[in-house]
Amino acid sequence: MEEIRIALLGHRFMGRAHSNAWSQATKFFDPPFKPVMQVVCGRDQADLQTFADRWGWAEVETDWRAVIERDDIDIIDIALPTYLHAETAIAAAEAGKHIFCEKPFANTSAEARAMLAAAEKAGVTHYLNHNYRRCPAVALAKKLIDDGEIGEIYHWRGAYQQSWLVNPDHPIDWKLRKDTAGAGPLWDLGSHAVDLAHHLVGDFSNITCQGKQFISERPLAEEPTKKGNVEVECAALMLSEFANGALGSIETTRYATGRRNRHTFEIYGSEGSMTWDMEDMNRLHFYSGKDPATTSGYRDILVTQREHEYVNAWWPPGHIIGYEHGFVHAVVDFLQAIKDGGGMTPNFHDGVRITDVLEAALTSMDSGNRVSIEQA
Amino acid sequence: MEEIRIALLGHRFMGRAHSNAWSQATKFFDPPFKPVMQVVCGRDQADLQTFADRWGWAEVETDWRAVIERDDIDIIDIALPTYLHAETAIAAAEAGKHIFCEKPFANTSAEARAMLAAAEKAGVTHYLNHNYRRCPAVALAKKLIDDGEIGEIYHWRGAYQQSWLVNPDHPIDWKLRKDTAGAGPLWDLGSHAVDLAHHLVGDFSNITCQGKQFISERPLAEEPTKKGNVEVECAALMLSEFANGALGSIETTRYATGRRNRHTFEIYGSEGSMTWDMEDMNRLHFYSGKDPATTSGYRDILVTQREHEYVNAWWPPGHIIGYEHGFVHAVVDFLQAIKDGGGMTPNFHDGVRITDVLEAALTSMDSGNRVSIEQA
Amino acid sequence: MEEIRIALLGHRFMGRAHSNAWSQATKFFDPPFKPVMQVVCGRDQADLQTFADRWGWAEVETDWRAVIERDDIDIIDIALPTYLHAETAIAAAEAGKHIFCEKPFANTSAEARAMLAAAEKAGVTHYLNHNYRRCPAVALAKKLIDDGEIGEIYHWRGAYQQSWLVNPDHPIDWKLRKDTAGAGPLWDLGSHAVDLAHHLVGDFSNITCQGKQFISERPLAEEPTKKGNVEVECAALMLSEFANGALGSIETTRYATGRRNRHTFEIYGSEGSMTWDMEDMNRLHFYSGKDPATTSGYRDILVTQREHEYVNAWWPPGHIIGYEHGFVHAVVDFLQAIKDGGGMTPNFHDGVRITDVLEAALTSMDSGNRVSIEQA
Amino acid sequence: MEEIRIALLGHRFMGRAHSNAWSQATKFFDPPFKPVMQVVCGRDQADLQTFADRWGWAEVETDWRAVIERDDIDIIDIALPTYLHAETAIAAAEAGKHIFCEKPFANTSAEARAMLAAAEKAGVTHYLNHNYRRCPAVALAKKLIDDGEIGEIYHWRGAYQQSWLVNPDHPIDWKLRKDTAGAGPLWDLGSHAVDLAHHLVGDFSNITCQGKQFISERPLAEEPTKKGNVEVECAALMLSEFANGALGSIETTRYATGRRNRHTFEIYGSEGSMTWDMEDMNRLHFYSGKDPATTSGYRDILVTQREHEYVNAWWPPGHIIGYEHGFVHAVVDFLQAIKDGGGMTPNFHDGVRITDVLEAALTSMDSGNRVSIEQA
Repeated sequence: MEEIRIALLGHRFMGRAHSNAWSQATKFFDPPFKPVMQVVCGRDQADLQTFADRWGWAEVETDWRAVIERDDIDIIDIALPTYLHAETAIAAAEAGKHIFCEKPFANTSAEARAMLAAAEKAGVTHYLNHNYRRCPAVALAKKLIDDGEIGEIYHWRGAYQQSWLVNPDHPIDWKLRKDTAGAGPLWDLGSHAVDLAHHLVGDFSNITCQGKQFISERPLAEEPTKKGNVEVECAALMLSEFANGALGSIETTRYATGRRNRHTFEIYGSEGSMTWDMEDMNRLHFYSGKDPATTSGYRDILVTQREHEYVNAWWPPGHIIGYEHGFVHAVVDFLQAIKDGGGMTPNFHDGVRITDVLEAALTSMDSGNRVSIEQA
Repeated sequence: MEEIRIALLGHRFMGRAHSNAWSQATKFFDPPFKPVMQVVCGRDQADLQTFADRWGWAEVETDWRAVIERDDIDIIDIALPTYLHAETAIAAAEAGKHIFCEKPFANTSAEARAMLAAAEKAGVTHYLNHNYRRCPAVALAKKLIDDGEIGEIYHWRGAYQQSWLVNPDHPIDWKLRKDTAGAGPLWDLGSHAVDLAHHLVGDFSNITCQGKQFISERPLAEEPTKKGNVEVECAALMLSEFANGALGSIETTRYATGRRNRHTFEIYGSEGSMTWDMEDMNRLHFYSGKDPATTSGYRDILVTQREHEYVNAWWPPGHIIGYEHGFVHAVVDFLQAIKDGGGMTPNFHDGVRITDVLEAALTSMDSGNRVSIEQA
Repeated sequence: MEEIRIALLGHRFMGRAHSNAWSQATKFFDPPFKPVMQVVCGRDQADLQTFADRWGWAEVETDWRAVIERDDIDIIDIALPTYLHAETAIAAAEAGKHIFCEKPFANTSAEARAMLAAAEKAGVTHYLNHNYRRCPAVALAKKLIDDGEIGEIYHWRGAYQQSWLVNPDHPIDWKLRKDTAGAGPLWDLGSHAVDLAHHLVGDFSNITCQGKQFISERPLAEEPTKKGNVEVECAALMLSEFANGALGSIETTRYATGRRNRHTFEIYGSEGSMTWDMEDMNRLHFYSGKDPATTSGYRDILVTQREHEYVNAWWPPGHIIGYEHGFVHAVVDFLQAIKDGGGMTPNFHDGVRITDVLEAALTSMDSGNRVSIEQA
Repeated sequence: MEEIRIALLGHRFMGRAHSNAWSQATKFFDPPFKPVMQVVCGRDQADLQTFADRWGWAEVETDWRAVIERDDIDIIDIALPTYLHAETAIAAAEAGKHIFCEKPFANTSAEARAMLAAAEKAGVTHYLNHNYRRCPAVALAKKLIDDGEIGEIYHWRGAYQQSWLVNPDHPIDWKLRKDTAGAGPLWDLGSHAVDLAHHLVGDFSNITCQGKQFISERPLAEEPTKKGNVEVECAALMLSEFANGALGSIETTRYATGRRNRHTFEIYGSEGSMTWDMEDMNRLHFYSGKDPATTSGYRDILVTQREHEYVNAWWPPGHIIGYEHGFVHAVVDFLQAIKDGGGMTPNFHDGVRITDVLEAALTSMDSGNRVSIEQA
């Protein structure tokens, strides 16, 4: 089988998840290329070597520009903090590399547009890793909506709730600084929620956002006896209207005590409705308005049947999969998209769409007023 | 509207539930008679008068035989401990009264048969109050089975679990004495479970039972500094085969810490399955094997639609009802049965069937062997 | 026991629920007065007599002013459409009657203020029937918050979702006309949600609202072959900030296919969190941040223990209650409040608070801007 | 790091799950050896090579005896049908290999004893792969029981329910033949359930079993136009007593329409209780009797905290894992046990214990009588 060579930028949480995906892809699926884990790139040489040994990356490198310039590399996999996405992605595109980019896409719409322009100009395959789309239960939700099973959509009710900032001793790190993170949960969690809303409902036509800081000062990560200012919101709540007439709400927070990683939506339409929650990611709850009045109720669908997308590659019915499996599905689809040349979603177009919505939300958060969103 | 006069025997927990049922029947339903709450009968005159004033019973009486002999009484409502059922029910039948009898039916099959014979000979309407049959969600389960929605039944998995005996200080009362209670949870809880199994699956052909005492001595209710022997089992577990070929299991216990009144069943058939739990009594979970593979899953049916049995008399969809409502439904159906003259279920025939199964279970509990059950 | 005489205005859905509450109050509780169901008032004499016979109202009357002027009446129970509340409540207050008033309180803040002023001037006991406060699980939520069990509150996430307007054939009735209903679900459902937010979190400091019409024309109830315009919103979504710094969201809709009467909230605080849903009203889900990391999780509390408020009056642990029981609790507390003379909540003050929030939401719905709320 | 060489026997469903486990072990954990996937052994050379290429086995071999005799192999991993376990395991032990053996252990107690004797005589590390013990939620259950959190155990209520035989067209394969499978669900599913009962409650002192065939003839896999007899039971239900006095029940079936792979238990003790279900494997439901009466309820514990066993090696809190992860945990613990030399559980001793219980159940299934179980 034809080989394809990957360079991974970043080796923290996302670096692990991506490495696992490249490694597992050929074991459970039959992608059209054999992915070769060629080089991993980061700042700390010693850590990097340990990481490469563990995951099977053939080489390590501390200069990301050198990696991008190598002729033998086909794919640049960006698993870096958001503020480094634009520079690396644009360079990768200019070098003609296919790009697998972690989310959030960019810190500003201007960055986002520049990234998209570079990728389009280069004609490379670009992918933005909103992994939840490739959770089988979400794939089923998409299919049911496309098949008209819930009819015209009236409501999207989304939330992405975590709780790690409830602890006042959690220090200020890059996720709490505006220049590195873009914003708070609006960016980190909201980008996922907006992507799912785009995927399952469609374009936004306006947005209203309300944010808040609950704890404004925290210890500095680099000097814990000193305190610094939290520069981003602690929670951001949004209302929206969609181009198709549906109403939406999205709630993002790092202060929802009791929720670890609750990414959830409810969608109500004229013919049915559905709900999903990432903490219980193998299930979709689906209500069909076509069921008789006496036996209608939310169906608790365990999305592990052979007929469900991606599932047959794993285990028999009733055997659930976990968080990292969505990354494997993304890698497999990405390799197929490179082969087919037709692109895949979500991609840098979606990155622009999402960043536009989030930037409008930031504007509304300041003004308290509803903000219109023009389609990119 | 024609009046019908009731005498209630007993004024404790079940006396309250029955009084409420007679009182609510005409407010929410349109039974064919106006039930007149004429006389309540018990041992303690003072308590009795308080009870009568509260619930609207016109008279009180301490001699149950005197009540049964009154010409103006049409219905004897027996809400007494089990060991008093046979004598009172037989006398009531001989006096030509219709009988609304609380469960468990009787302490022995011999008693049960005598009660049935008396009622049949007298030609009166007789009802045995296994109230769970008239919970709307259970009524829906029955309808779905009768309509063939789950096909041929393979499995009944039932349990009735309470926890009030986990406390070692709970004293010995009539429920822990063999002569008054018949047996332990096998009788009190098992009679309900067996009745639902009869209702939803059919006759038993054999039974195997294993019982156990976890705490054998407890304070005496009448003299708490002394201890006495618990005379009945603390838990009783059963396996069974049904005449139609299904397998069954029933678990009854008063030692299930965390369960208050969990009366639950799972039924699996060739075309579907369903589960129910009294602690969440307004819902039936129904799985239809006819749903497509991708969208099949247990439907969480909130049984509060106008199309559901009994429900329309109460509140709009989504407004749930409680424990006592099943008693109201029983009273309404009982009055209709008297009017129609055709009998209703469960009745004294069912009392015999249930007592036969429980008596066989007691035999098996002693021997450890499977016991066949002949149909009455 | 001292008697207290009631006149009920209205005999539809709420008339039934209130009649049941007066009737059940003395059976399960021991209020300080014996409530006498003296007279029910409505427009249709024949219907009214049938209703009175069924529920035990001694007299019927078609002129509500005549009823209010009667010296023998102590309590006016208003179970009329919203647009009739102000006139009747003010007259009742001026006649010195205690007032038990159904929600929504009023159609405008001006009406609401006039009602409060009249009641305060007359010195009568006034109650606004937001019945959900007296659901035992909500009472437990309140107690836990007051006891500090969830600490400082960060988030209120509420929703009241129904689905009866998904059917395009549902005709235009008083609930879809602005002059009779005030607004759409914002008023009908939002008043309940705002009341619970007031009760459990506190005053609002600002609100942002987005509304929408999904179906704008419907058959006229009085002439079904003709269509008329829906005058109120089909759904209304709100964001808010509370005076104590918490963020809030409330979603109200009649277009949530699959939801019958889902009135739900999530509350997140620094020490814990909780969720509740009216469709499963006997349970509170409570997360305690004080539990060890390995065993922390939402507790599924079945609120049927003797220690839970109101519960001991009904049935043993594990036996649930239904929708109408909250009305009984309200009647019992109302009678006690009359006896004690100290008032009760929610009352006409709360009616003003709620109406102020809803009116601000209406303003925001039009403008798309955040609206400040001054405390009344 | 020191290497350790593995030979895998079998390359079907379990071959995949084991290969994945060996492959993932060093990526997420730090076992004391580097496992080298040296050779995979099976009957079909072509299939075998494809499998080896996919999973990274260095060599293939069709003669299992040749593999066992190789000096460079340290571990024999048996992923074959049950009837091949005894011969291969005994040979592996005699060759001094450590043994990682898939379940069910053996087809008879005699086989089981011979396997244990061989392993013990050889002094090798032996492991029986009842993988559910190493699901983090089950590990938490074990810890809570050992810490006394549920006190003295009264009840074990277990079930393992699948539905793949509801389809009458499912052909007769090795799982439906007595000589290859030992028995039906009693063996395949019951062995898992009995192992968890051993692990969490302790030894059985007696057992009663009732089995049944629902469909007795099915198409032959090798000649689908012909039918053959199903040689094993379709469902097997058990009651038991444990040496510590607890009562138990276990239900195993392949006819539970709607259940894919529901392996579930409820455990009730004097101080608390817990429930678990493999279809929702990342959660443990735990009821603590020490919680106050007003706030006690089953805690829905998402077992993804860093403090939970095995979890920290994977992803952050709230990110669930799947079915195959338990196999990785087993491999890691197995490598550690080889290093430490102290053995691990479950092992071949447990294999004997389990087979003894299942064989007694088979006896009881025939006789209908309770059968005592002596401890091995």
